[in-house]
Amino acid sequence: MEKKKVEDSKTVMTQLVLPNDTNTLGNLMGGKLMHWMDIAAAMAAMKHCNCPVVTASADNISFENPISLGNMVTLEARVTRAFTTSMEIYVKVHGEDVASQYKYVSNEAFLTFVALDPHGKPRKVCELVPETEADKKLYDGALRRRQLRLILGGKMKPEDADELKALFMDRLPD
Amino acid sequence: MEKKKVEDSKTVMTQLVLPNDTNTLGNLMGGKLMHWMDIAAAMAAMKHCNCPVVTASADNISFENPISLGNMVTLEARVTRAFTTSMEIYVKVHGEDVASQYKYVSNEAFLTFVALDPHGKPRKVCELVPETEADKKLYDGALRRRQLRLILGGKMKPEDADELKALFMDRLPD
Amino acid sequence: MEKKKVEDSKTVMTQLVLPNDTNTLGNLMGGKLMHWMDIAAAMAAMKHCNCPVVTASADNISFENPISLGNMVTLEARVTRAFTTSMEIYVKVHGEDVASQYKYVSNEAFLTFVALDPHGKPRKVCELVPETEADKKLYDGALRRRQLRLILGGKMKPEDADELKALFMDRLPD
Amino acid sequence: MEKKKVEDSKTVMTQLVLPNDTNTLGNLMGGKLMHWMDIAAAMAAMKHCNCPVVTASADNISFENPISLGNMVTLEARVTRAFTTSMEIYVKVHGEDVASQYKYVSNEAFLTFVALDPHGKPRKVCELVPETEADKKLYDGALRRRQLRLILGGKMKPEDADELKALFMDRLPD
Amino acid sequence: MEKKKVEDSKTVMTQLVLPNDTNTLGNLMGGKLMHWMDIAAAMAAMKHCNCPVVTASADNISFENPISLGNMVTLEARVTRAFTTSMEIYVKVHGEDVASQYKYVSNEAFLTFVALDPHGKPRKVCELVPETEADKKLYDGALRRRQLRLILGGKMKPEDADELKALFMDRLPD
Amino acid sequence: MEKKKVEDSKTVMTQLVLPNDTNTLGNLMGGKLMHWMDIAAAMAAMKHCNCPVVTASADNISFENPISLGNMVTLEARVTRAFTTSMEIYVKVHGEDVASQYKYVSNEAFLTFVALDPHGKPRKVCELVPETEADKKLYDGALRRRQLRLILGGKMKPEDADELKALFMDRLPD
Repeated sequence: MEKKKVEDSKTVMTQLVLPNDTNTLGNLMGGKLMHWMDIAAAMAAMKHCNCPVVTASADNISFENPISLGNMVTLEARVTRAFTTSMEIYVKVHGEDVASQYKYVSNEAFLTFVALDPHGKPRKVCELVPETEADKKLYDGALRRRQLRLILGGKMKPEDADELKALFMDRLPD
Repeated sequence: MEKKKVEDSKTVMTQLVLPNDTNTLGNLMGGKLMHWMDIAAAMAAMKHCNCPVVTASADNISFENPISLGNMVTLEARVTRAFTTSMEIYVKVHGEDVASQYKYVSNEAFLTFVALDPHGKPRKVCELVPETEADKKLYDGALRRRQLRLILGGKMKPEDADELKALFMDRLPD
Repeated sequence: MEKKKVEDSKTVMTQLVLPNDTNTLGNLMGGKLMHWMDIAAAMAAMKHCNCPVVTASADNISFENPISLGNMVTLEARVTRAFTTSMEIYVKVHGEDVASQYKYVSNEAFLTFVALDPHGKPRKVCELVPETEADKKLYDGALRRRQLRLILGGKMKPEDADELKALFMDRLPD
Repeated sequence: MEKKKVEDSKTVMTQLVLPNDTNTLGNLMGGKLMHWMDIAAAMAAMKHCNCPVVTASADNISFENPISLGNMVTLEARVTRAFTTSMEIYVKVHGEDVASQYKYVSNEAFLTFVALDPHGKPRKVCELVPETEADKKLYDGALRRRQLRLILGGKMKPEDADELKALFMDRLPD
Repeated sequence: MEKKKVEDSKTVMTQLVLPNDTNTLGNLMGGKLMHWMDIAAAMAAMKHCNCPVVTASADNISFENPISLGNMVTLEARVTRAFTTSMEIYVKVHGEDVASQYKYVSNEAFLTFVALDPHGKPRKVCELVPETEADKKLYDGALRRRQLRLILGGKMKPEDADELKALFMDRLPD
Repeated sequence: MEKKKVEDSKTVMTQLVLPNDTNTLGNLMGGKLMHWMDIAAAMAAMKHCNCPVVTASADNISFENPISLGNMVTLEARVTRAFTTSMEIYVKVHGEDVASQYKYVSNEAFLTFVALDPHGKPRKVCELVPETEADKKLYDGALRRRQLRLILGGKMKPEDADELKALFMDRLPD
């Protein structure tokens, strides 16, 4: 099975905030942005595994800078690490007020997707090879985020989360 | 300022999965479901604070049981705890295949919203008084989830997370 | 064939009035509300018959209180009576301005649906057993509404409408 | 105040049935069709009164011939009679399967709209002058339909419905 | 194979400009109008060939008069000429501000469609017979527009475009 | 007034073809693609002029390779030349079937936009400086395409189209 690069999965999606995307104060609704993040991330995942995918999870997302009606939203998604049948995707979102030439970070998130065969069953995905320093850092962090996900989902006991424990032991001393 | 009950904010939203909501395998896309969860949760938050709200964060969401085209989706949202200007909302999602009379848990999530005044600035919200055992448990857990959110968002140091530390100390012994 | 209770079909749908749902005066368009009423009623009918359904008719609907942009709309639907292959559904609609804590009746309607087999042909539905006084009143009225529907649709002669005639004879004396 | 002809308000709307407009059996959902009927009728009403309008009521609508995915839907709307501040609109709907060159009547309905001034208050509308025999028949029937609407809406006692009583007396003898 | 008249394909589509159709200045976006023009033209083409069609090209479209939120848009489409497996469609668009009774030409365009058999392969279409002077003029011009399309698409050399060359020779003398 | 580079306006938009975007053969409808092309091009234009824009025209567009349901569509837009108050935008569209790793050119187009001040009147835009060979070629061709647009729109006589005439004289000899 071939190996793939981060570059192969990079996906850029630009959206214009239209009236129906906004709340009564004229700002993009969080749910609509999560919807776009899921589609952008799914496309990055599909580029990596070349098959249909299904969203398995979305990590904590925080919304800090409101995005206004008429602003542009740019979503950049890429695979950070591939596991047996799943992939972790990193999505970074920028807002942009073109009139004032002001471009700002909106938020970021990690989502995971499972690759599916034509019968809807999980199938193996090829390995991801990180190349840049930034990609390697995301690749390394993926194990820890995965353990946190499993613990939060009640599927792993904290004492088995070796990667995470090391981190917490440093940061949570007696 | 008046106090409110959990009951006051309960919101039920039922949706029918239409073709455009589905991926190529005929299942509801995760992003669409997150979109609905955000709207249901926002309505629960608005019922509690009686003013416009904006999504501040969505906690980890995992998607386990795919929901098929033509199935019904029921989202039940309610406030679990009110902080100074923000509220934590719990959303539980069921799918239902009416033909086979099969109703199943899809997933659940915690989202937080900030109450806004007419100028879009945060404003105080009234207190929530939990009554049932289940509500009290959600109310108590809200502090720990808040600390985890702050740590994951880089806004709190692990050593200051008293609520969470107690929990982790029990579960992450040397 | 089992009998079912009114409770089994109860469906609650909450919607937020978004910009595209409104006319130039910022109020929910009647057609959009009818669209939601049809979906809510269809889901109630599906819960009763556990199969696909098709809208057969919508009784007179009047729109009295305009619902504004940003308000919430709550639709409550339930089966009032089951006939051989069709069901009558009652839908009650409330609007709610959460900021001013003002909840108001918008309107109500009766719709009928036909249960379909996998080939799209009408199939038998199970009986409905009303329990509360309110449910029994709706159950009894269903016969008269059905006769009025048939007369208005040109499918029954007024003189054959026994249920309705009795009513009109009392109310329309020489 | 000028008088207007039926011709002035005629509105034709053609729609293509897309996937999201259909139920699980591939037929146009009744609620979507009611949505289109309301928009077509509103446009006819606006052409008559040259101001914003709001839906006041929709008379009994029955759905007899299902309209399939990919078929065309043609809606023809026109004003049948103008009252002080309201107008009755007649909408006729055809479906068309272009491949088999089969054009069929789907259904028809009467809707009423109220003309609004810029503050959202009812305002007077000009008179309608029917010219053809068909238009005159619809114009004459409008009074009876109006009385039935008022009785069904609980706003008129049957004994005051002179137009309707005459009709029912002929058709509902002792 | 039967011959058809222009009248057989005439299609009228009326749309109301809703908030999501507009840009930040409250005018209908050009892309949304092109979307509607394509659907109206496709329906005219389908009426002529009685089979599925696919858009082959859209000629130069210019947008001169902005259409405002709340205005009506009327699109009139008809076949101007049928070639072996394709058809040229003429679409004329009017905007209308019903409040001020102002109806104005928005723009016009020529689109071409290819008729498809059930396997998605091009199939023959019947001949179009123009009857009125206006229809004959459009019919005659279709050849020249077709040659311009082929040249602009790089599929015909200018020296082979006899119809067009005659025109340009008159208008582009040395 | 500052000068800008082509790079400054580059906009990439990726879309997933959903059921409602397709015709009865499961291919992306031409009108939907034109809608996306217009939005992508408008965003490129806004990045250049930093103000609202309105579509002025779309040049001939031909659709050659159908794009299937579930495929990805990538639209790349950039300004090719700025005139006094208008900009020409080049949009290139690729389709991609991720399962088979097949990426194909769908089509391309030139659209023009006018920059608007807050009152909706045309305003000056800054100059574009092409840098690469490809950008210079597009920049040079913009004059000829503009003359063709003016001639096709009836706003310029062929004999005044110096740029175009030179081209046609070479290609359309006596």
